[in-house]
Amino acid sequence: MKNRTRWLATMVVAVTSPILSAAAWAADPLPSWNDGPSKRAILKFVADVTTVGAPGFVPQAERIATFDNDGTLWSEQPVYFQVAFALDQVKAMAPKHPEWKEKEPFKTLLTGDVKGALGQGEKAILEIVGVAHSGMTTEEFHKTVSEWAATAKHPRTGRLYTEMIYAPMVELLAYLRDNGFKTFIVSGGGIEFMRPWAEKAYGIPPEQVVGSSGVVKFEMRPTGPVLLKEPKVEFIDDGPGKPVGINHFIGRRPIFSFGNSDGDHQMLQWTAAGPGLRFMGIVHHTDAVREWAYDRTSAIGKLDKAWDEAVTKGWTVVDMKTEWNRIHPFEAKASR
Amino acid sequence: MKNRTRWLATMVVAVTSPILSAAAWAADPLPSWNDGPSKRAILKFVADVTTVGAPGFVPQAERIATFDNDGTLWSEQPVYFQVAFALDQVKAMAPKHPEWKEKEPFKTLLTGDVKGALGQGEKAILEIVGVAHSGMTTEEFHKTVSEWAATAKHPRTGRLYTEMIYAPMVELLAYLRDNGFKTFIVSGGGIEFMRPWAEKAYGIPPEQVVGSSGVVKFEMRPTGPVLLKEPKVEFIDDGPGKPVGINHFIGRRPIFSFGNSDGDHQMLQWTAAGPGLRFMGIVHHTDAVREWAYDRTSAIGKLDKAWDEAVTKGWTVVDMKTEWNRIHPFEAKASR
Repeated sequence: MKNRTRWLATMVVAVTSPILSAAAWAADPLPSWNDGPSKRAILKFVADVTTVGAPGFVPQAERIATFDNDGTLWSEQPVYFQVAFALDQVKAMAPKHPEWKEKEPFKTLLTGDVKGALGQGEKAILEIVGVAHSGMTTEEFHKTVSEWAATAKHPRTGRLYTEMIYAPMVELLAYLRDNGFKTFIVSGGGIEFMRPWAEKAYGIPPEQVVGSSGVVKFEMRPTGPVLLKEPKVEFIDDGPGKPVGINHFIGRRPIFSFGNSDGDHQMLQWTAAGPGLRFMGIVHHTDAVREWAYDRTSAIGKLDKAWDEAVTKGWTVVDMKTEWNRIHPFEAKASR
Repeated sequence: MKNRTRWLATMVVAVTSPILSAAAWAADPLPSWNDGPSKRAILKFVADVTTVGAPGFVPQAERIATFDNDGTLWSEQPVYFQVAFALDQVKAMAPKHPEWKEKEPFKTLLTGDVKGALGQGEKAILEIVGVAHSGMTTEEFHKTVSEWAATAKHPRTGRLYTEMIYAPMVELLAYLRDNGFKTFIVSGGGIEFMRPWAEKAYGIPPEQVVGSSGVVKFEMRPTGPVLLKEPKVEFIDDGPGKPVGINHFIGRRPIFSFGNSDGDHQMLQWTAAGPGLRFMGIVHHTDAVREWAYDRTSAIGKLDKAWDEAVTKGWTVVDMKTEWNRIHPFEAKASR
């Protein structure tokens, strides 16, 4: 019977949309969260800021919640998914670029040695990402990303990358919206890379996605106007860039922020520094079996200084292994 | 009796909030618009895109409407109101800048000769605007703008600048929102100059204001984190910059756009170039008595090429003099 129940639960998840609405789970708005310190802190905070007349009440318009994406809303191992996208694009573009056969890092990459190509350093990675994200119109890029998101598979799970989202965080986003919050992504990832699939995956519309960007140029062609993506970085929405991006795009300070690495440290500090009640959360990757376990020494998603401050200041640090009974939506709920 | 009716109408306007809600006017959602080609075009477009099953139906999430600000939502004469703000700021800052007594354009400006200072050219104006918009934190700037907006008066009407908004356009914004549109400002004006008062004036929240910006830098101080406004232009949201700004901030193409000058031309072209039904509107300043009359040869708000294309393509051009029975909310409704 127990297996049967689990199987049914999985089916419920499978047939509901990628947005796990609170309604689907009746009384518990966060069913993938075990009863633990993080879930309790979230429920208490939301109750405190939404109860009219309570000392911590926050008007609806001011309920701004910002979320990092890589490692906070979806997985980021073994490489950032946007890098996986760029690698796929370079391979697809190679026939039109015979010069790449003689030019690093493309030469190594096209022999199939991904590790060797990425291992050539940050400049090499930026070059690969750069060619995959420029030289086309914004509409062409949107189409390319949409097609990739609908077909490309994660090397370990064999699932679509957009299935590698975290079920507990998708529930949290919906729960916050049900309580009058406006939810935003604030990610170091590319703004135009995330927008094509973020609404379906997280319920976050394009105009609430903040991210890194390249220069875009307006051009009037005989067939009509286009926006061209140029090979020039415009803004890096990471580290100290996150409060800057929040100010630029949103123009209000969030009262609720979630991240997973030192790249989110300043966003959490910026959130914490406002008046009234504040919620600062960190996803700690502690589950090497169901996901990955990494923190202070990881090349991707390093969590060190932000963790120290979280401990000192009493921010919420989520232990994925013990606090999440399910990580990705395609998994069965773990028994307690 | 007639005067009495007018007086009552004025009082109704005065006691409702700055947002003239559709409800306040019962059946007619656009009471400040005379029955004319522009009002009919607006009502028809909204009916066409919101009627489920109609060939032109647009899902709610795609109902993006973008509005220029200066000359489209509020007046822009005799100088852009943001320039008036900058002039006031320079005067207020002067005691801390003794060096300005010997430095142009400040020297001329501080003698009271505004025309002479602004007449020194674009570089001089940018310098005045620059010092008024940098060298402080974003929170300090927000406070300064809020205080100015609450007190500074327009030289001709003696009204607050935020009272110099256009009642017909405020009605239009509310009408669109009542029909599931998301309304955005897309202005050449400063994004941080508009955000402090745009919500009260137009019902448009900070996160839906797109504008020009300066570089902002995160800094951790002993008292906590701040964002510093630097004296460096980051982005000019005007002309070809408007489609770029729309792509950057909103990430979707609007189906409805309104402007008043050639600075809005590319935004209107970008809106027009999408699939399905589209609305492109231009406010034509034709009323020298109640407002100002200017177009092809004006230094401020020049309307020339966009007007030609509007005529050729059948875009909506609003004749302020004949189509608006009231321009600013503090005016009585004109008799027909």
